[in-house]
Amino acid sequence: MESLKTTRMKKILFFGFIPVLLLAFGACTMNTTSNKNVDVSEERIDFLGITNKDKLSAASKRALQWTDQQLYNNDWYFEYKVYDLKGDFAFEEGVVRRDPSAIIKHDGKYYTWYSRSTGETVGFGGNPEVDKVFPWDRCDIWYATSEDGITWKEQGLAVPRGEAGAYDDRSVFTTEIMEHDGMYYLCYQTVKSPYNKRVKNQIGLAWSNSPDGPWTKSQEPILSPADNGVWKGDDLQDRHSVLKKGDFDSHKVHDPCIVPYKGKFYLYYKGEQMGEAITFGGRQIRHGVAIADNPKGPYLKSPYNPISNSGHEICVWPYNGGIASLITTDGPERNTVQWAPDGINFEIMGAVKGAPHAIGLNRTADNEKEPTEILRWGLTHQYKTYNYQYIRGFKTEVRRKHTASSDKGTKDKKKE
Amino acid sequence: MESLKTTRMKKILFFGFIPVLLLAFGACTMNTTSNKNVDVSEERIDFLGITNKDKLSAASKRALQWTDQQLYNNDWYFEYKVYDLKGDFAFEEGVVRRDPSAIIKHDGKYYTWYSRSTGETVGFGGNPEVDKVFPWDRCDIWYATSEDGITWKEQGLAVPRGEAGAYDDRSVFTTEIMEHDGMYYLCYQTVKSPYNKRVKNQIGLAWSNSPDGPWTKSQEPILSPADNGVWKGDDLQDRHSVLKKGDFDSHKVHDPCIVPYKGKFYLYYKGEQMGEAITFGGRQIRHGVAIADNPKGPYLKSPYNPISNSGHEICVWPYNGGIASLITTDGPERNTVQWAPDGINFEIMGAVKGAPHAIGLNRTADNEKEPTEILRWGLTHQYKTYNYQYIRGFKTEVRRKHTASSDKGTKDKKKE
Repeated sequence: MESLKTTRMKKILFFGFIPVLLLAFGACTMNTTSNKNVDVSEERIDFLGITNKDKLSAASKRALQWTDQQLYNNDWYFEYKVYDLKGDFAFEEGVVRRDPSAIIKHDGKYYTWYSRSTGETVGFGGNPEVDKVFPWDRCDIWYATSEDGITWKEQGLAVPRGEAGAYDDRSVFTTEIMEHDGMYYLCYQTVKSPYNKRVKNQIGLAWSNSPDGPWTKSQEPILSPADNGVWKGDDLQDRHSVLKKGDFDSHKVHDPCIVPYKGKFYLYYKGEQMGEAITFGGRQIRHGVAIADNPKGPYLKSPYNPISNSGHEICVWPYNGGIASLITTDGPERNTVQWAPDGINFEIMGAVKGAPHAIGLNRTADNEKEPTEILRWGLTHQYKTYNYQYIRGFKTEVRRKHTASSDKGTKDKKKE
Repeated sequence: MESLKTTRMKKILFFGFIPVLLLAFGACTMNTTSNKNVDVSEERIDFLGITNKDKLSAASKRALQWTDQQLYNNDWYFEYKVYDLKGDFAFEEGVVRRDPSAIIKHDGKYYTWYSRSTGETVGFGGNPEVDKVFPWDRCDIWYATSEDGITWKEQGLAVPRGEAGAYDDRSVFTTEIMEHDGMYYLCYQTVKSPYNKRVKNQIGLAWSNSPDGPWTKSQEPILSPADNGVWKGDDLQDRHSVLKKGDFDSHKVHDPCIVPYKGKFYLYYKGEQMGEAITFGGRQIRHGVAIADNPKGPYLKSPYNPISNSGHEICVWPYNGGIASLITTDGPERNTVQWAPDGINFEIMGAVKGAPHAIGLNRTADNEKEPTEILRWGLTHQYKTYNYQYIRGFKTEVRRKHTASSDKGTKDKKKE
């Protein structure tokens, strides 16, 4: 009990010094100097290596806005490695296995679910009746188990595409698992035929009392795109022309992940907007959340959406009473770890060098041990070719010091 | 003339709307809402995909601080590819060729200079009298020429290490070329033996009236680290223990690049600080500038240093009356393109997905054509193994629209 109490104390202290005015990424870089509210203690000036505190460059002004948590604490900074897995997760030519769900444990075995399809990707120029337009097209959701997290055995189909005419008749993919009150829930993306560039993606749900199924599918999607964008013209293969872009999720809702939180169910998802543009950080990809009282919904979108202005696949976990989120790939805040005390208002806690794609989190980890403990190992995917992706493993390490290979005093093939 | 005028007009318009209060990376994300000075026009709300402008998430508040230049203009956003070169720049086992200088053109041929050494890296645990502690240890500066930028011919030694006892007796490396008034200047890093973890790196200079030499070396370094850090203890192999860190460049001055600017010579360089720590953005690596009236110095460090709080190798070029800088690898602002109207106060213009390492810029490019025109192609290096690096090429492309391979309507092996 003593050590648990100490951990809690540390956490209170740790979060205690995040000021109410939480500033991200340097902030307030006024060319007209205004340093009120800015800590210019000698310790901070020394840590930042500022030559003359009366002659601050724009960069130094940004750095002086960093919070103590950002400046002195590196619990949210990590570096990562990826590696091949064994058994059925070894690369297999001709088969797509991608977007692994989180890992859960049942009867001593690890479980994961993923998008699976076969055959090459032809694109929108192919035969729309039979060809795949993307690697995630014409997928079903399969699952695999493992004793050790390294060697995986594919167990077979979990959730198939729907019958012709159903909202999920074309593809079901990019799934996430939630275990709650003895029930298992898989949420996933859905596409209805025909697959053109203006097709709207939705989110479906399936449930079972066992991770081995059988699974019951929702009759209707549990989430759909906002309907307030307006296309320009009627070319179904032109997704960039719009009269009105609409909400951040006016085109697609993707990458769902349901987290039990504060007695409710928070469905985090990626939104794609009609008329997607490039900004100074690349693609306009953002995240939103929809909240329900029950796992099966109805899910009501938060009026605070979007809750991120960067990122790609959803990767969220509970930490210290709030929700942490790894923001990857797109937008100016890409490659940051963020945290929201309320699951909605996310602030930047760490800026990492990079992160694995399409992470399947290890939900068996002790989330509260460290902010990124849940990232110590997990699943990711990799494009072996454009046609075929396979599921790999990743590891992360919290870095508290930069050590070059040469520092170790031994021959080591690692890059400095 | 008409088109030149139009270009100039565009530029004035383009920079005209960067407000005095230039905000970087979202800034001022106050949890207590204060949206004065924030443009919440319908167009901006639509572009950002905000659901309800009266219910703004922390992320939306950050996004609303982006300038028009950041939000609507993507001239500073690019993506890149690297590729192998031919001739003597093909990988050669046993030889290190790294840190290519900028490319200049003379008598119809491209020239570049680089760090060259042979033999494997043993690290600090090896024999200090003969072994290499890093791949850039025991280097000399060599040069190569090319007709087409693809096939390179190594021409031989340009600047050797100094005699025993000289400030550059251990290694000369990471060089940059400047051509000015018919003279050629190579600036470079220097290390004096013995190479321990507390050794201070300096910057040397050599000059010639021909790119083919011979080169005259400065008797003394033209720049040295700040002397206001204080080591803790006397273990020469412990670079992390300090009583006082000192200025951002108290340990090492690296990666020099001299740019003629405003009638003076701006020597941009990377600083490493004694007691380097990890922050929320990784290693504490920053940039500074020292200014001289003449190419040979004396170079006086700017009191505004550091001028970046992120980045690694210096990569700077003149643009539109100011200086642009590509910030890579380290720190929370890594992978951004920045610009300073005065060469000192840098603001974030674009946030890119990544960038080539150790760039050798193509100084023959028309800098003013586009902000990142100088990055359309150039040189970089890559670790083939920890021991041996080789010089490669890179290309960049300005991205104005996200196009998936499948969008093209043809089979294409490119990753979405």
